[in-house]
Amino acid sequence: MSVLATAQQLADVRAARAAHRAGSAAPTSGVAAGLTQANLIAVPADWAFETLLYAQRNPKPCPVLEVIEEGQVESVLAPGSDIRTDIGRYRIWRDGELAEEVADARAAWDEHPDLVAFLIGCSFTFETGLVQAGIPIRHQELGRNVPMYRTSVDCVPAGRLRGEMVVSMRPIAADRVADAVQISGRTPAVHGAPVHVGDPASLGIADLSRPDFGDAPELRDGEIPVFWACGVTPQAAIMASKPPFAVTHAPGYMFITDVPDAEFLV
Amino acid sequence: MSVLATAQQLADVRAARAAHRAGSAAPTSGVAAGLTQANLIAVPADWAFETLLYAQRNPKPCPVLEVIEEGQVESVLAPGSDIRTDIGRYRIWRDGELAEEVADARAAWDEHPDLVAFLIGCSFTFETGLVQAGIPIRHQELGRNVPMYRTSVDCVPAGRLRGEMVVSMRPIAADRVADAVQISGRTPAVHGAPVHVGDPASLGIADLSRPDFGDAPELRDGEIPVFWACGVTPQAAIMASKPPFAVTHAPGYMFITDVPDAEFLV
Repeated sequence: MSVLATAQQLADVRAARAAHRAGSAAPTSGVAAGLTQANLIAVPADWAFETLLYAQRNPKPCPVLEVIEEGQVESVLAPGSDIRTDIGRYRIWRDGELAEEVADARAAWDEHPDLVAFLIGCSFTFETGLVQAGIPIRHQELGRNVPMYRTSVDCVPAGRLRGEMVVSMRPIAADRVADAVQISGRTPAVHGAPVHVGDPASLGIADLSRPDFGDAPELRDGEIPVFWACGVTPQAAIMASKPPFAVTHAPGYMFITDVPDAEFLV
Repeated sequence: MSVLATAQQLADVRAARAAHRAGSAAPTSGVAAGLTQANLIAVPADWAFETLLYAQRNPKPCPVLEVIEEGQVESVLAPGSDIRTDIGRYRIWRDGELAEEVADARAAWDEHPDLVAFLIGCSFTFETGLVQAGIPIRHQELGRNVPMYRTSVDCVPAGRLRGEMVVSMRPIAADRVADAVQISGRTPAVHGAPVHVGDPASLGIADLSRPDFGDAPELRDGEIPVFWACGVTPQAAIMASKPPFAVTHAPGYMFITDVPDAEFLV
């Protein structure tokens, strides 16, 4: 399919990327609604094949939208963009440890000019469809970041890369869970249907109120916690696999593209 | 999803792989019906990242089902298999030229022990659904190989790899074209919906009766030629890009896995 963004969406997304480039940062759920957001992981060229293979073997958490090759910094999904500056907040990883969070990653690219950047699909893509169907997104309503959790589910390894799956969680009213499954299932190339509905303990999540990334959720009476595979999964792989260097976005602070979410509907 | 193969299907597929291993060869459309078949491209490790990236950038013709890493020869999609022997007919490529066709590729792996093998989805997967819906598959009826064509549509390049898209063609009655689109569209991870319906000239196909691969088609009154992206596309990339060495299957002579086609339904 080829779906066109509206002029308003394009104005919104360019303003958002320009603001990030100028140094501002906030979670991006709901920003430039209807345009696809992406997770970032950038690794030295020597790790690029294994990263792409890890994504291929774990397509639910790691759907690859684009690979920006060594020496390139502009995304084809966002003409005029610069992947080093147009995300609100970056994480710099050294030997699997989070070394610092920065608003501008140009110094990281200067240090490692051979970085290959992977844009990974984000569950914010199907939030648009959920909202349109009258299913409220709690973290948007509260102005918070989506809650994300490391799980006890191992991803399929690839070379030196291994790690557990990370999931995002949205509380969904029991009578809308089936709708949420079907709506998100229409974007199989961007996480697709949930990996788990209810029962956090069997995912290895001991306490829903203490997410590993993002903000605490608010579960109300009659709501079920619904879990989707999350594009922060590569960050768990960094922690477990300890590549010498990597750059990612900070969870919830996404790269926003010019591509409508509807492009990924089947 | 996790869909189980039947005992009969598993008996059929093991017999087929054993026959190929023993040296026999025939086009595999309709063999072990309901189990997923795959295209093969194997390249030296130095070309593996670009091959995987080419597939990621051209997912309709090159949906990756599995990557068999350097030093491995067994597919996880077919326990007990050997990718060097279990296809009926292999093509050996040198500097982009077809050097020979062989029934056994062990000598190729001996010559290049660093080969990385890619299994790419095959349109035979959705033929099962078409047959179940009462849409006849002409090449199966005639006991021929499916017709395949090089097109004037360029794939997105990746590093040293470039080339045009290859398509397979099935004649479909005009009143079943929409059904064929919808049925194949349910397997977006395995070529999915057609890339083109009717009008071969606008795909750069001058003469339908002379396919570039496979056997000539038989188009009957009231039938429309319907074109799907084809997993022979990597062979066109080999011809255009001239890697020093590569191994593929011969078009139509596929690797048959133990995985039910239904596994790829969304």
